[in-house]
Amino acid sequence: MTVKVPVVRDILEANEQLAEDNRRVFRDAGLFVINLMSGPGAGKTSLLERTIDALREEIRIGVIEGDIQSSYDAERIGQKGVQVVQLNTGGSCHLDGNMIKSSLQALDLHQLDLLMVENVGNLVCPAAFNLGEDMKAMLLSVAEGDDKPLKYPRMFQESRVLIINKIDLLPYVDCHVGKMRERALQLNAHLEIFEVSCRTGEGLSPWFDWLRRQVRDRKAEVDGTKT
Amino acid sequence: MTVKVPVVRDILEANEQLAEDNRRVFRDAGLFVINLMSGPGAGKTSLLERTIDALREEIRIGVIEGDIQSSYDAERIGQKGVQVVQLNTGGSCHLDGNMIKSSLQALDLHQLDLLMVENVGNLVCPAAFNLGEDMKAMLLSVAEGDDKPLKYPRMFQESRVLIINKIDLLPYVDCHVGKMRERALQLNAHLEIFEVSCRTGEGLSPWFDWLRRQVRDRKAEVDGTKT
Repeated sequence: MTVKVPVVRDILEANEQLAEDNRRVFRDAGLFVINLMSGPGAGKTSLLERTIDALREEIRIGVIEGDIQSSYDAERIGQKGVQVVQLNTGGSCHLDGNMIKSSLQALDLHQLDLLMVENVGNLVCPAAFNLGEDMKAMLLSVAEGDDKPLKYPRMFQESRVLIINKIDLLPYVDCHVGKMRERALQLNAHLEIFEVSCRTGEGLSPWFDWLRRQVRDRKAEVDGTKT
Repeated sequence: MTVKVPVVRDILEANEQLAEDNRRVFRDAGLFVINLMSGPGAGKTSLLERTIDALREEIRIGVIEGDIQSSYDAERIGQKGVQVVQLNTGGSCHLDGNMIKSSLQALDLHQLDLLMVENVGNLVCPAAFNLGEDMKAMLLSVAEGDDKPLKYPRMFQESRVLIINKIDLLPYVDCHVGKMRERALQLNAHLEIFEVSCRTGEGLSPWFDWLRRQVRDRKAEVDGTKT
């Protein structure tokens, strides 16, 4: 007797259901939700810090920090005085719908406009697990090199936004941003691309404007549904 | 009726068996084998290029290149005229014992002294899968930040060697190498640490000397067994 065990598909299907549950909760709260992904040390937490500093007076921002262990990033974000919760995956290399679901009770979603989820630093698996977000955004540091789209294609395909970070390092690294953009756009022609330095602040204004627009559109959508 | 399905442990146990098979093959060939791990873009391929350039006249080096897809890295290494095989994991975020086993037929192991396996760029899962290597070595770029040991502890615990790369960028990034070293050593007091720049070549000599010693010791060991 043989037993059929289609494990991987089941995990992804079960995750899809949980992501759908989360999506409904986010919609009910009128929230715009971003799933922020990158390899380790590309600058996700620094981008969050810069974004909170720039937008906190106009947009109520909440953060879910995903890490294998430690609460280092949540402490950094907590110093900004916004709602934040640390999720420890206990070894898992990505967040999933269930982890997000279990973390939501720690947040007052109705007091938020924008929820940013910082995924585990990993250019591979996070791209395969929906969390219920409105869109995925990824960071890539110029220090990682312009060949990364060739080698980690799925994350570029799943993302709506690519933030090329650490452009202040361009004079000191062998990275051609034009090539990086071209390779990313070949994988996903709809990518919205921002070139920034979270260290110097260069290039961040268009990203802030883009975020403002997403939150405003969500609000308009929610108001439209109500009337 | 309930069925017990201890999947994860089984996978790791099965992998351990395959790694053991590989280890036996490597020993028979008198090879020293390193499993090279890091996050994306930390400089694994550049380190391999530098190492081959420095040691090719004295040590016969072979390379297994692990990537999700593409043969970009193997082509880079192939230009050095050494034995190289590209392994595509087809989505998996790490190499495992079986992948290595299946790639060995593409190499003439008895014509090699040193086999370097470049794992998929990922600071998480590669640390959990033995390949049959003599030791794991990891790279960390200073551009990734000095907090990485706190957040990705297992890789530091499993590695015998930590190569801190891109030290030429230190004047331009917020990274304290002393703190990075201290945090890494707290996780693993036996780590052999090298500070290098694969771009400028700085700091690489001690790494080459260390590799020479490992290969020489393996040869002495094999000769000792024969007599």
